[in-house]
Amino acid sequence: MNLINIKNIKISFISIVIVAITGINFSCSQPISEENNNEQYSGKHAKYVFYFIGDGMGLTQINSAENYQAALKGKIGVKRLSISKLSTQGYITTYAQDRYITGSAAAATSLATGYKTTIATISMDGKRQKKLKTMAEMAKDKGMKVGIISTVDIDHATPACFYAHQPTRNMFFDISLDLVNSNFDFFAGGNFRYLTGERNNKTINLIDLAEQKGYKYINTKQEFNKLSKKSGKVIAIGPVLAEGNALRYSIDQTAEDINLADFTSKAIELLDNKNGFFMMIEGGKIDWACHANDAATTIHEVIDFDNAVKVALKFYNKHPKQTLIVVVSDHETGGMTLGFAGMGYESSLQKLKYQKVSFEEFTKTINNLKKNKTKPTFDEILKLIKDNFGLGDKEKGLELTKLEKKQIHNAYLESFSKSKKQMTEETYLLYGGYEPISLAATRILDHKVGIAWTTYAHTGTPVPVHAQGVGEQIFKGYYDNTDVAKKIMAVMGVGL
Amino acid sequence: MNLINIKNIKISFISIVIVAITGINFSCSQPISEENNNEQYSGKHAKYVFYFIGDGMGLTQINSAENYQAALKGKIGVKRLSISKLSTQGYITTYAQDRYITGSAAAATSLATGYKTTIATISMDGKRQKKLKTMAEMAKDKGMKVGIISTVDIDHATPACFYAHQPTRNMFFDISLDLVNSNFDFFAGGNFRYLTGERNNKTINLIDLAEQKGYKYINTKQEFNKLSKKSGKVIAIGPVLAEGNALRYSIDQTAEDINLADFTSKAIELLDNKNGFFMMIEGGKIDWACHANDAATTIHEVIDFDNAVKVALKFYNKHPKQTLIVVVSDHETGGMTLGFAGMGYESSLQKLKYQKVSFEEFTKTINNLKKNKTKPTFDEILKLIKDNFGLGDKEKGLELTKLEKKQIHNAYLESFSKSKKQMTEETYLLYGGYEPISLAATRILDHKVGIAWTTYAHTGTPVPVHAQGVGEQIFKGYYDNTDVAKKIMAVMGVGL
Repeated sequence: MNLINIKNIKISFISIVIVAITGINFSCSQPISEENNNEQYSGKHAKYVFYFIGDGMGLTQINSAENYQAALKGKIGVKRLSISKLSTQGYITTYAQDRYITGSAAAATSLATGYKTTIATISMDGKRQKKLKTMAEMAKDKGMKVGIISTVDIDHATPACFYAHQPTRNMFFDISLDLVNSNFDFFAGGNFRYLTGERNNKTINLIDLAEQKGYKYINTKQEFNKLSKKSGKVIAIGPVLAEGNALRYSIDQTAEDINLADFTSKAIELLDNKNGFFMMIEGGKIDWACHANDAATTIHEVIDFDNAVKVALKFYNKHPKQTLIVVVSDHETGGMTLGFAGMGYESSLQKLKYQKVSFEEFTKTINNLKKNKTKPTFDEILKLIKDNFGLGDKEKGLELTKLEKKQIHNAYLESFSKSKKQMTEETYLLYGGYEPISLAATRILDHKVGIAWTTYAHTGTPVPVHAQGVGEQIFKGYYDNTDVAKKIMAVMGVGL
Repeated sequence: MNLINIKNIKISFISIVIVAITGINFSCSQPISEENNNEQYSGKHAKYVFYFIGDGMGLTQINSAENYQAALKGKIGVKRLSISKLSTQGYITTYAQDRYITGSAAAATSLATGYKTTIATISMDGKRQKKLKTMAEMAKDKGMKVGIISTVDIDHATPACFYAHQPTRNMFFDISLDLVNSNFDFFAGGNFRYLTGERNNKTINLIDLAEQKGYKYINTKQEFNKLSKKSGKVIAIGPVLAEGNALRYSIDQTAEDINLADFTSKAIELLDNKNGFFMMIEGGKIDWACHANDAATTIHEVIDFDNAVKVALKFYNKHPKQTLIVVVSDHETGGMTLGFAGMGYESSLQKLKYQKVSFEEFTKTINNLKKNKTKPTFDEILKLIKDNFGLGDKEKGLELTKLEKKQIHNAYLESFSKSKKQMTEETYLLYGGYEPISLAATRILDHKVGIAWTTYAHTGTPVPVHAQGVGEQIFKGYYDNTDVAKKIMAVMGVGL
């Protein structure tokens, strides 16, 4: 199971067994929706719409970042993110048509079109026969400029649901073809998952095709800085890419990278025009970090996402009567909680600062060791963990207990034992298919600061909505993810 | 560790060790608060105020009850509770003055007075020197009638913070003395924790003292039904009590019991008068069920609490322009999540219907077996678990895996081994001090339906606020627990 595919797993091997035993079958069930919040909107339309989606970002993800920022200053409490300072809040149910715990494709379809659909479907109806028009397409039809930005590969499920219509999220190349045919004005963030594909026995190069369709495709910082209104339609890819052709995790980024806030600033510069714009900006790697149950990386992703919201707020302050900002999430990931049994009522999030790299970067380090002829000693592994996570450092208040040392040793045996082992129910629960030493390190650090997780998948917990600007009043309350789309469409004056 | 004391534990033995090692000391830190939502209220004052506190009730507790109700009908989605149908929602941070993860006393002090305080303090300042006036006392001063209702013992931390001022929540008898001296009009729910106490070498009987102070003290259904406006000041205790002198868990209640909705109806009948009323109604055992990580019992408690909200809504519908209903929580308990690693993306909450009794009732059954001379066989325990939780029943889709059987067997050894064992870090994480077989049974059932927990204590996750009626508009948004008190006081026209 690699780090990227984890996001696409719909049913773990354990639940397959359970489903087989129990015969759970929801496919005939219809979802129940009891929204009480769809009052008609008769106000002014917004000329500028920012739609931020924090993938996997539940209440705890936001609150942990706020608690972390306060804790770094030695304070008990929260240092609010810009997200939660937006003047109106609500929250939403997230379930899909055929499963209570949703996936990013079904959720983003609801958020982009206002309809429920089935798991893995990209802006088509639940039977995967009818295309569902997205608010981005409606905005484009209306003459607005449209931008789609994500920290993950630009053909991933969430961004895809705004410009593509495909029966499954795994059809990356078809999704990419929809992208280059969309005529949208600005795409930015991670690259295409696959740069070439076969159609009718011919190899298609996506970059060539994009250029034929009138796009300027750039992937260096120099070219990025030169982009201007004169550049025309643009596909702007980050100069440094990580697994899955995504941007690097914020915790791993350096001055070489272009971050989400940079892309958002550039989008404003390029898209501002007399007919207004719609842009969707996704913090896609919040979800990936949560799948891996890595709290420090998650919190850095949330803060990185919040920095992009700050850019939009700066624009809002210049155009308060014409702008709507909505920040939402598609679902919570990981069952992240600020409270761990082994810590009782204590927490100390400031110690997350000792984590220097994401689980992904640390996994690379471990995997490189696996290529060596001589196996590293357990002490060498303990030193690596101390250097990268502070674990085992008494002065940092991170001394390892006997049990924790045992847990790391078990992970060491799992990672470096010569014999290929079958993944058992127990090893899945322990490591979720991730690199065992890396998972053990983030797990123990998280527990020691008071953070715990319940799953490597998504959860069914409602997620918050935050809004400010034109029409914000209709975003208060408790409603469904489909309603978010209907509300934004109403304020934009399109669709439905 | 008995079932009741778990609520009073501030720091588990594990965290004591960790604190000792790391030297965490927050006592000098000042809390940060950045509320942006305290606009002045200049509207009409509410004549009737219902203040509902769901102890330990986070977003997942509410949402699981809603998902459970839909799942029972074979539907994917939610069947909304009355709570979340209230027309305005917000959410709040919950931290105490000296600890991020709060306790019920500090949290209820904030909710009752508008001030932060230290852990375990009952409506006094953080140094435990100055009394903080509560909104219930202010309402009484204003001439409103006042009622305090809870499913737990009536001198427990949450109700106590509305009528008592004591340096610590464990001073149950002093709190009870404050109760009988409060002159409030109606107390109902669980009994006093201790009915007698010593003061100046004299034994004081609380019931006698209450009667001297003009209270009618009743504890039968017959007397309860006869209560009327003519009864004067009343202390109405449930006829059937469980551990800690609390009402029984809703899942264990029969026609013999008086439930929270019954007490709320009676309170309205007795307190309605030309000067209006204030009442605080606590669902206190939501928290206790969550401490024990028992999802079915939790969901029944939430539904029971919601039934009391329904009673208030019925009253609201008769007096919509004079009534305010606020439903809030003091903190989340348990780190409850709808999403468990072993189930991947699947959940099936309808199977919680197979749980017939609370963990408390089942613990009694197990403890009774411990009194026998002959130890029960493992098969006898498996049969008990099957009868009470459906676990092991293939037809119910609850067949036990090898790992689950092993977990129950380990719990069986833990419960019935002759030698007294020291609680280790590992056994604490597994059972949290609860009866091992009982905990294993609810844990496995919860996991099989897709629910997981991270702690036996509280968590730091923000909790929702729901409001309807006079002044409801000021309850939207994201703010602090102290603000809830300030807002209610503003709408009642008292204090601050």
